[in-house]
Amino acid sequence: MRINENYGNLKENYLFSDIARKVNEYKASHPDADVIRLGIGDVTLPLCKSVVDAMVKATLEMGKKETFRGYGDEQGYSFLQEAIADYYKKRGVALDISEIFISDGAKSDLGNMLDLFSTDNTALIPDPVYPVYVDTNILAGRKIAFLNANEENGFLPLPDENTKGDIVYICSPNNPTGAVYDREGLKKWVDWANACGAVILFDAAYEAFISDDSLPHSIYEIEGARTCAVEVCSLSKTAGFTGTRCGYTVVPEALIRGGKPLRKMWLRRQTTKFNGVPYIVQRGAEAVFTDAGQREIKENIAYYKENARIIADALGRAGIAFSGGVHSPYIWLKCPGGMTSWEYFDLLLNKANVVGTPGAGFGKNGEGYLRLTAFGDRGRIKEAVERIIKLK
Amino acid sequence: MRINENYGNLKENYLFSDIARKVNEYKASHPDADVIRLGIGDVTLPLCKSVVDAMVKATLEMGKKETFRGYGDEQGYSFLQEAIADYYKKRGVALDISEIFISDGAKSDLGNMLDLFSTDNTALIPDPVYPVYVDTNILAGRKIAFLNANEENGFLPLPDENTKGDIVYICSPNNPTGAVYDREGLKKWVDWANACGAVILFDAAYEAFISDDSLPHSIYEIEGARTCAVEVCSLSKTAGFTGTRCGYTVVPEALIRGGKPLRKMWLRRQTTKFNGVPYIVQRGAEAVFTDAGQREIKENIAYYKENARIIADALGRAGIAFSGGVHSPYIWLKCPGGMTSWEYFDLLLNKANVVGTPGAGFGKNGEGYLRLTAFGDRGRIKEAVERIIKLK
Repeated sequence: MRINENYGNLKENYLFSDIARKVNEYKASHPDADVIRLGIGDVTLPLCKSVVDAMVKATLEMGKKETFRGYGDEQGYSFLQEAIADYYKKRGVALDISEIFISDGAKSDLGNMLDLFSTDNTALIPDPVYPVYVDTNILAGRKIAFLNANEENGFLPLPDENTKGDIVYICSPNNPTGAVYDREGLKKWVDWANACGAVILFDAAYEAFISDDSLPHSIYEIEGARTCAVEVCSLSKTAGFTGTRCGYTVVPEALIRGGKPLRKMWLRRQTTKFNGVPYIVQRGAEAVFTDAGQREIKENIAYYKENARIIADALGRAGIAFSGGVHSPYIWLKCPGGMTSWEYFDLLLNKANVVGTPGAGFGKNGEGYLRLTAFGDRGRIKEAVERIIKLK
Repeated sequence: MRINENYGNLKENYLFSDIARKVNEYKASHPDADVIRLGIGDVTLPLCKSVVDAMVKATLEMGKKETFRGYGDEQGYSFLQEAIADYYKKRGVALDISEIFISDGAKSDLGNMLDLFSTDNTALIPDPVYPVYVDTNILAGRKIAFLNANEENGFLPLPDENTKGDIVYICSPNNPTGAVYDREGLKKWVDWANACGAVILFDAAYEAFISDDSLPHSIYEIEGARTCAVEVCSLSKTAGFTGTRCGYTVVPEALIRGGKPLRKMWLRRQTTKFNGVPYIVQRGAEAVFTDAGQREIKENIAYYKENARIIADALGRAGIAFSGGVHSPYIWLKCPGGMTSWEYFDLLLNKANVVGTPGAGFGKNGEGYLRLTAFGDRGRIKEAVERIIKLK
């Protein structure tokens, strides 16, 4: 018996565990401190009415023999696939429902999608980045090359003639930097991937936060993407589903590698190693895409974006440099006074009782930055930024 | 870019897709036929009242800011881990809640658990067997050795001095044969695994159907199992959760391989590639383990077992040999007249309009057998067995 030795190559602690430990230690020694958490990107507004109503109805259906549902197709119910196809259609993207796979969230699919690829491929991952892109490739023993995202390129790296890799991750709007690719930028990646036969894993988890209609929400708005890109999306941030768990992954029929349609491989992977998303949750997700659901979730997103504006305004007044916060719930700020990420994290925790996420936790280019999230309560956000400004 | 070439080693079609295709073809050419499906092992009784009430309550909580829940721990809420630990305690098995991982079902975990092991291990798989044990190992490129389960050993193979393998699958009560290991049998496997350093993946998905209190529900009832076995269980058949999706996997702290505690590796796997089960569903699962919930699900299980008894009685009267149906919702019958599995399947479909599952789909030792499930409606089951008997 040999274990998967790649586990030994992971760093011992996960970013958010380190943060939790520091916060818990601080709270243990300062039991009366009023700590405000702007660290983990978790929503705080409740599920909207349309979703709750749909899930209550579905739960009651599950309690009656005539309307009970057992196993559904692993790839999801067609009622939800169709609702998602309609959502894409509004932006001019035509998808067949067989290309849409309902999932329990982007994190699962981003990790599991790697089952389709040989472990001797090279993954091309932006730095800074959502840590699971890196960890899931380490677990498979894949080589990783990093794409530098920094102030010079506006945190939006582009390929050039030296760019080499097989699987490239693009997250736009970006976590953690809040940067968004425009059509031109994405077109460069699509052309590059089609030319060299790479596959783009496009993480669109924050697409609903885009404020400018000219920016692409989906990579399939770019010509040529159907032959090189998988798109992973989630209702976690779009509709407050972090604790309800539903997302979707698009694998276009035209995406062929090694002579095999990846759509068919993914279907086989999912039918073999997954049993679908709860019927009740799929009915809740369907409600997100109704007119009423869209109105309700847009109110919530507007609330978070107003929070982001409040943070951005305050940082601007305090002379702290930052990016993000316009098409994204994240503010990516430059630690004042040349502090490192963890120095500024400690200062904020100890002196302002505010918890951010150290940029260094997202990669070496994140050093010297800190991420704040706008998902909190309005009053608490205002209180937090006042404390941050005072500290300056 | 190279794809995972192991996908090419899978058989083109999945057993249940083949069955669905045949049934659909038959129905297309016989639109008035009244087909009774005793094929796929899917439950038909609705969720019990305690579960529905708990999920409605949880859904309403998710709609209010004060009680809304975002991300939970990937390994599940402690309220559910504790309910499961109590359930084990009633059978004398003490588990720490950190050893209990809440999952979206046994199928996911049985597949994903393989991430922990090197791909150069050999998997030891009973034949006949639930097809996903085989397919998930093929996808990883692992060598597979089969354990013959047949009439001679009562479909319960045991290890001997020549048995070699690193990961061994034991499903008891068994799908498809309905056979159950007694303590002595499991002890032999536990001793073998501890002696050679193998890991047992114990699939307890049907434990709730055991009728005889002397038979083990959990492998941890056997001394020594904590150092060699992972147990995967599911509420799918126990509580009708096939469309609601919740299970649990136990990885004992004492299970160490390659110098690493597998519990810690699995925690890392789940925190990296999974985001937990919906809060609403976990509340539903918690209700299964209350006194009222246990009473309600036991009524449902009794209903299915009475169905199994009706099938068994009828087959007995018709002189068709079978096993199972006592501690399991499955009846494993020997096709009469020396027919092959698919010959008898076709005969039942065409002449009795009854759908079974051909034993050959579960492995070479399944040839000549057919599986019937007792999950259907009582009236339909009675109608089906009458048709089967008439055919004889």
